[in-house]
Amino acid sequence: MSRPGNKRPEYHKIDWHLPAISSSASAHSMNRDLFVLTYGALVAQLCKDYEKDEDVNNYLDKMGYGIGIRLIEDFLARSYVKKCHSYSEITDLIAQVAFKMYLGITPSVTRNESSRNEFSLILDKNPLVEFVEELPAGRSSLCYCNLLCGVIRGALEMVHLTADVTFLQDRLKGDKVTEIGITFLKKLEEKKYRRKK
Amino acid sequence: MSRPGNKRPEYHKIDWHLPAISSSASAHSMNRDLFVLTYGALVAQLCKDYEKDEDVNNYLDKMGYGIGIRLIEDFLARSYVKKCHSYSEITDLIAQVAFKMYLGITPSVTRNESSRNEFSLILDKNPLVEFVEELPAGRSSLCYCNLLCGVIRGALEMVHLTADVTFLQDRLKGDKVTEIGITFLKKLEEKKYRRKK
Repeated sequence: MSRPGNKRPEYHKIDWHLPAISSSASAHSMNRDLFVLTYGALVAQLCKDYEKDEDVNNYLDKMGYGIGIRLIEDFLARSYVKKCHSYSEITDLIAQVAFKMYLGITPSVTRNESSRNEFSLILDKNPLVEFVEELPAGRSSLCYCNLLCGVIRGALEMVHLTADVTFLQDRLKGDKVTEIGITFLKKLEEKKYRRKK
Repeated sequence: MSRPGNKRPEYHKIDWHLPAISSSASAHSMNRDLFVLTYGALVAQLCKDYEKDEDVNNYLDKMGYGIGIRLIEDFLARSYVKKCHSYSEITDLIAQVAFKMYLGITPSVTRNESSRNEFSLILDKNPLVEFVEELPAGRSSLCYCNLLCGVIRGALEMVHLTADVTFLQDRLKGDKVTEIGITFLKKLEEKKYRRKK
């Protein structure tokens, strides 16, 4: 229901100095602070709902999975990504294109030398914790950003890649860096990639 | 804990075609789809937690309020906004700068002619419902985007403006447009503004 009374559109010419982001923003971009604070509200709600950190972590991962399986379509449509031929390429793609697109950051990628299918994303900056000084009291096992693991897992599954995605280190827990580990569980056909070398 | 095994950074030169948004994005921008889907997960969680739509609406508003009182600082820092001298200017500012910055859209503004302090934001497009086809079954009174009302209310309160902010119409409920009503409850000193006319 609308308010009673006639309304008329008002067009004021006010010379507000628009910040750079607004003028350059595409139809699909936004300032991420609203997201970061909304995410914080989501985690707070889950902490209220679930007593055990493990349950909150699982729920965040599950939510993220549901997001990832929907987000992949948008990602593929926008990123013009060609077929990847190795786990290494895929992980670089996640770091350099997906993280850049959705969170505005580019984690560095490391590979476990003793294994062909284990990689890590090292996040120097993590915008999701920008407003978080420390984990809530009594929540020392909380993986605050676990939604991201679920998103990656869900998105990968939609392109027929099964992966285990978890936080291996977290600055919020006192670690020196924040590190997301990705272990690909199904072997990708790497023949073509190797032949090219 | 990190994985065992030595790691080495890997730098591949892959000529991925980065989408426009990535190359032009500032350090604080992101693709909003991740936010939109995360917001959906938040609303779904609240619907699970609270049986009554009214309780979900109130909770979303309350969450939004908490976000608004934090977001205003960021907004003022980035928007270079000068002092406003009328409710009309303030509402235009919310529509043309704040909505543009945080959601990438610019609602149109209408004013209730019979009242100096009642305004509406008309959202032609509402990115928050981009992935929502209809309200969940049995949730006909849900104000899906009520977080936005709380954000506006909280942000205004931090600049000493008390306002009532509610959804008056909602396309998700079958209305022709989506309309957020803002009623300013405290009179702003409009003398300067009037003198200038």
